[in-house]
Amino acid sequence: MSEIVDFSDISKAMERLAGKVKRTPIMESSLLNRWMGHRILFKAECLQTIGAFKIRGALNFLCRLEEEGKLPKHIVANSSGNHAQAVAYAAAQFGIPATIYTTESVSPIKAAATEGYGATIKRFATRPEADAAVAVAAQAEDTVWIPPFNHQDIIAGQGTAALEALEDAEQVDAIFAPCGGGGLLSGTLIAAREKAPEALVIGAEPANANDASQSLQAGEIVALSSTPNTLADGAATPAVGELTFPIIQQLDDFYEVDEVQIAYWTQWLQHLLKLHIEPTCAMTMAAVASWAINTPPGQTALVMISGGNISQLSMQAIWEHDYLLQPPIITTEE
Amino acid sequence: MSEIVDFSDISKAMERLAGKVKRTPIMESSLLNRWMGHRILFKAECLQTIGAFKIRGALNFLCRLEEEGKLPKHIVANSSGNHAQAVAYAAAQFGIPATIYTTESVSPIKAAATEGYGATIKRFATRPEADAAVAVAAQAEDTVWIPPFNHQDIIAGQGTAALEALEDAEQVDAIFAPCGGGGLLSGTLIAAREKAPEALVIGAEPANANDASQSLQAGEIVALSSTPNTLADGAATPAVGELTFPIIQQLDDFYEVDEVQIAYWTQWLQHLLKLHIEPTCAMTMAAVASWAINTPPGQTALVMISGGNISQLSMQAIWEHDYLLQPPIITTEE
Repeated sequence: MSEIVDFSDISKAMERLAGKVKRTPIMESSLLNRWMGHRILFKAECLQTIGAFKIRGALNFLCRLEEEGKLPKHIVANSSGNHAQAVAYAAAQFGIPATIYTTESVSPIKAAATEGYGATIKRFATRPEADAAVAVAAQAEDTVWIPPFNHQDIIAGQGTAALEALEDAEQVDAIFAPCGGGGLLSGTLIAAREKAPEALVIGAEPANANDASQSLQAGEIVALSSTPNTLADGAATPAVGELTFPIIQQLDDFYEVDEVQIAYWTQWLQHLLKLHIEPTCAMTMAAVASWAINTPPGQTALVMISGGNISQLSMQAIWEHDYLLQPPIITTEE
Repeated sequence: MSEIVDFSDISKAMERLAGKVKRTPIMESSLLNRWMGHRILFKAECLQTIGAFKIRGALNFLCRLEEEGKLPKHIVANSSGNHAQAVAYAAAQFGIPATIYTTESVSPIKAAATEGYGATIKRFATRPEADAAVAVAAQAEDTVWIPPFNHQDIIAGQGTAALEALEDAEQVDAIFAPCGGGGLLSGTLIAAREKAPEALVIGAEPANANDASQSLQAGEIVALSSTPNTLADGAATPAVGELTFPIIQQLDDFYEVDEVQIAYWTQWLQHLLKLHIEPTCAMTMAAVASWAINTPPGQTALVMISGGNISQLSMQAIWEHDYLLQPPIITTEE
């Protein structure tokens, strides 16, 4: 298997995952569509098993190992949250014990769910320390490390969410996804280039965790030196990967979003879609709004809603100020 | 037409509303099912048009007037929120101007949506004052008052939500709905007695707005003397109606729920179902948990999720404390 991920890997992942993950619905808000002057479709992966798209990559990874007769006796992984739950859940499906390496700042609700699926959690002060510890643990006999994003099975698995959405939506002019390590964004881009080659593919990350943006400007991978402080905890990854970076370099546009905008859009998307949506994906709507205002009206955008696992502290921070008093109105009706 | 609502009225409403309202999905959480020892199904009316079941009654009312050639030139209504949006939206469908009489404590987000649908809002200090003002306004020529709950068309319309759910669910042993004025609860009971005659039908209201509970104990309608202070703003109605009360008297059980329990279950249902659920309906889960602990395991409950229109102040209050640290575990697995 080549290290380059292409559309055939996503097709193969679709077959492997059939019946194992949910085909999540596409949702929209007529009011938001009117305000934006465009139709905005949301692929609701918050309604996915484990509450996030991450189960797609982790299950695809283990299904491929099973096909090759290479299932291990122990699984290890490192994650800021949703990947931890995904690996814990996927490992449990195969009856394999799992240990998750994470930071002390991990969302308590994501940690509780991970332990609820039967995995053991090890906490470290910083993400680089957790990443170093998992690399050592992965050397043990009969142990396999499931990386959070920088692997062809993970990228291909995450790409199935966009592939489903592009099969279900009639016509899409622009596709938006958040960027943490770049797994979802890379899979989305590869699926989009095949199924909707005319569509723009656009990424977004927190301004407080702008490693991908720095990397795109530098033309090489730049890593954050400290744990970023952002509501969008799913996008707090310190750096993109060697596999995801060249794919992310093919994006049509990329946005950095500040914390006020992240809270603003989380409030509005929760309110308009009636979904419990993570800041990590609501953030992407700031990019959609910028695109919407600069695009002739009447187009269709697809937004990848990555998950809905939110701690009480995050909910408190999201709802501290009242942004519902300022509706996101871009166009006025004739 | 008799003033007594029966199942044929709900059937007729189903026909009238076909294609005009959404057939909302039934959702469940495998984790919650495991914790409760029962299967808990949620009829997700937060995903309904206007974000609440109330559109069913208001549209049924106007469709019936249209059938009789009696559509008015002006519509008035009184409401603590969701009925206001429902009347505003339904009136707009028929191109009829609407005025809504409400209190100054109305949820700003519900008021904004009501105005967004084109209605005019008049605010009063207390609910009885708003109710008195709408009664005067309703006397004007060519004007029709759409009552919030105490009317056969409203009760029958709201009953279609339970009818849909009972058609979609295989087997239901107990059905739970919140009680404000009793429209949803009455419609649910009538639908349930026909489609699932063996099922228990159970209501719940805030302890801080316990007029229905007082009325059931007194055997006559008791009204609250002041505007109640509760997170469950959709159940803050001062009294049930002459039409809904005799139906509510047929309930199998009824619960009063305190404010901590209301916040607790709103957090947990938002987290587990990934839906933006109002405290008014999350409240009902406290009754489900009491039923669950006193019922031999393995049964199926249906919970009517009434809506998802929540102000920033309510969200702030709901998420002030961390209840996600205390999972609602009733049964431990063998």
